[in-house]
Amino acid sequence: VRIVKQSVTLLQCTPEPCKLIEAAGRTCYKSECKITPTSAAKFVKMLMKRRHYSVIEHAVATFRIVTDRAIAQEITRHRIASYSAESTRYVTYGDEGKGGPVTYILPSGMDSWHTAQWMGACTDAERSYLSMLDHGARPEQARSVLPLCVKSELVMTANFREWHHFLRLRCATTAHPEIQEVALMVAKELAVQCPEIFEEFTEVKSKTSNTGKDD
Amino acid sequence: VRIVKQSVTLLQCTPEPCKLIEAAGRTCYKSECKITPTSAAKFVKMLMKRRHYSVIEHAVATFRIVTDRAIAQEITRHRIASYSAESTRYVTYGDEGKGGPVTYILPSGMDSWHTAQWMGACTDAERSYLSMLDHGARPEQARSVLPLCVKSELVMTANFREWHHFLRLRCATTAHPEIQEVALMVAKELAVQCPEIFEEFTEVKSKTSNTGKDD
Amino acid sequence: VRIVKQSVTLLQCTPEPCKLIEAAGRTCYKSECKITPTSAAKFVKMLMKRRHYSVIEHAVATFRIVTDRAIAQEITRHRIASYSAESTRYVTYGDEGKGGPVTYILPSGMDSWHTAQWMGACTDAERSYLSMLDHGARPEQARSVLPLCVKSELVMTANFREWHHFLRLRCATTAHPEIQEVALMVAKELAVQCPEIFEEFTEVKSKTSNTGKDD
Amino acid sequence: VRIVKQSVTLLQCTPEPCKLIEAAGRTCYKSECKITPTSAAKFVKMLMKRRHYSVIEHAVATFRIVTDRAIAQEITRHRIASYSAESTRYVTYGDEGKGGPVTYILPSGMDSWHTAQWMGACTDAERSYLSMLDHGARPEQARSVLPLCVKSELVMTANFREWHHFLRLRCATTAHPEIQEVALMVAKELAVQCPEIFEEFTEVKSKTSNTGKDD
Repeated sequence: VRIVKQSVTLLQCTPEPCKLIEAAGRTCYKSECKITPTSAAKFVKMLMKRRHYSVIEHAVATFRIVTDRAIAQEITRHRIASYSAESTRYVTYGDEGKGGPVTYILPSGMDSWHTAQWMGACTDAERSYLSMLDHGARPEQARSVLPLCVKSELVMTANFREWHHFLRLRCATTAHPEIQEVALMVAKELAVQCPEIFEEFTEVKSKTSNTGKDD
Repeated sequence: VRIVKQSVTLLQCTPEPCKLIEAAGRTCYKSECKITPTSAAKFVKMLMKRRHYSVIEHAVATFRIVTDRAIAQEITRHRIASYSAESTRYVTYGDEGKGGPVTYILPSGMDSWHTAQWMGACTDAERSYLSMLDHGARPEQARSVLPLCVKSELVMTANFREWHHFLRLRCATTAHPEIQEVALMVAKELAVQCPEIFEEFTEVKSKTSNTGKDD
Repeated sequence: VRIVKQSVTLLQCTPEPCKLIEAAGRTCYKSECKITPTSAAKFVKMLMKRRHYSVIEHAVATFRIVTDRAIAQEITRHRIASYSAESTRYVTYGDEGKGGPVTYILPSGMDSWHTAQWMGACTDAERSYLSMLDHGARPEQARSVLPLCVKSELVMTANFREWHHFLRLRCATTAHPEIQEVALMVAKELAVQCPEIFEEFTEVKSKTSNTGKDD
Repeated sequence: VRIVKQSVTLLQCTPEPCKLIEAAGRTCYKSECKITPTSAAKFVKMLMKRRHYSVIEHAVATFRIVTDRAIAQEITRHRIASYSAESTRYVTYGDEGKGGPVTYILPSGMDSWHTAQWMGACTDAERSYLSMLDHGARPEQARSVLPLCVKSELVMTANFREWHHFLRLRCATTAHPEIQEVALMVAKELAVQCPEIFEEFTEVKSKTSNTGKDD
């Protein structure tokens, strides 16, 4: 049993996203002549205020996300994005193929009793998994006994409109605690790249009543 | 521990799909005058032969699918469809809320040794899960120890073009055995509704070299 | 020159949409036991109130829409829908192939002076178009002189969530007058099929400040 | 009357696209350890050969496209992309607002007789358009008499998988001559950014039998 924390890594982001968004947006109104060295940030803020979100679709960002299987499934339910995920079929879950320890993500907010119980369950599952592999089970059969908290890794590309939507739903106190944690890490990275759009999400908000169903 | 088999149930299908597809398709060429009481099936076969798949998007079908968590995740990776899935957060997995047995899907093709090992792992996981719930863990914490073979239920609506694509990838000997089984059950139902489009998938084919990656 | 009005025809709608939506929605919360002969309408109203729009995606409707080229282009910008449109390349625009009159849609709200001017322009365009075809131009070359008000026909299938979104944007006083007219005709048909979702759109509203940009 | 040629301008492309695609793709198979300074191009070629197109979705490119209204409509039918287009409602088509000449795109392959006829039609349309505006018609009414060959400008962002699909359909002798021209210009730009994926489209091919219907 190995335990790692959730993490996100920015792999790619449109360079100077506000400039690209301004170039695209001013096409709609033939106001390209109004572009100045400092007009982009102001233009993007105006778009956000008016909710002309379609224009921010031209900028994109890609993250590597390390989380557990259950949260990975919840993330990939967002349909307007591109994903590459660890194959759940061909990859064995231990380190470097068969035989190594299985890696898990510890759920947040558990006390020591629950954590001990959880560790016991993860140890049992690892033992069953490795034993099945040792006795000739196919990886796709053996994985069936691994728990939902097993580590999962995915690369996700989405445009800024979809990231904005994702963060609006997931940076909320009503969201699942683990996905909140992922969303907050994403928000902090994106706020560096484009504060005009993402700064508002760098704190989890309690005021939204959205239950995360409106995706 | 309760064990159930995978299953699919057709909840809805466009009535007389070929007639709707013909009505839409003949709009493209202004050949509505060629519609006769028997022209629809022939028209749809012609579309399929020429791969004019966009026209078959007008017909849709909805299935309830009972499978395990790992296969549910693989299915929901198809982005051009609509899903309603058992909440993985608010629902406790036993019968009628807390306390009941957890329901699993048995992987196919395992011998008796592996099956016994698998049963043991499922029993352990159930015990840990119920114990965590009994001691006050939130459902979203406790579920983390449930294995990927836990039963999952989802309702999926897709148009005929997407179902055709799904079946092309998943009714193939290279697909995961459990998803093959689901796909074959879907294909048999759809072949009754619209043999012109789906009859070709009522047998798993070995000839495709597609690895299921091209979704 | 022939002039027709805009029109819409419902070609298909999910039968008993509320029952299907309830069946799908109750899967999420394992509350299937609460289904009664009269529970569906109430369930759907609750979903709409809570904005759990993803569940209404399981119901779909198909319309044939007769409008002009400019409005057809605006409609087809909605990406979460399926379209079959008159080919703009192979079909000649006169009645029954070459030689017939070209059909147009009259813009709304024009006085008699503008209407006369418009008629003159349409007559000129028709003459140029037919003359080019007579002298051997390919349909795709000749069509280039036809005006944006030339009649266009399309078949559009969308799920209820997308229709709801479409009507929210297009049944608004800020929308283009012609697309408002189309949207209102669609809303009236859908309100018959599923008043629980669509009744609110059977009147054009002035209160929305949405400019139709948020698609 | 002003006449311009079709044109495309690359506004943005993922820097070092093969490296990003390799990083994402190797996540699927946990083969990150095989990354070397020169492994990316080879990895991408392998993906293309095996048709594992989902991985190339992580790279994107944005173009400004100048074409006519009919071709713009055909391009925007590709649903898996983001568009910002000249508003067809608020923008008047002359230079710098009302009063200037209207700009057109000349269809390809016309002889001098047809070109003269076409010029006459464009001149008539411009006169009607400007006259309606002068007499108080709203831009959205007046535009209805402008022909399909009026210039249209759009900014389009798509991922590499969708651009690959677009070019496969549109760089074909069966495609509309004007859209072929646009596609070929796009292909030449993309082949500079990522020859591993786009080099094959830098010549229009006659061998495909695809009619462009399979989008």
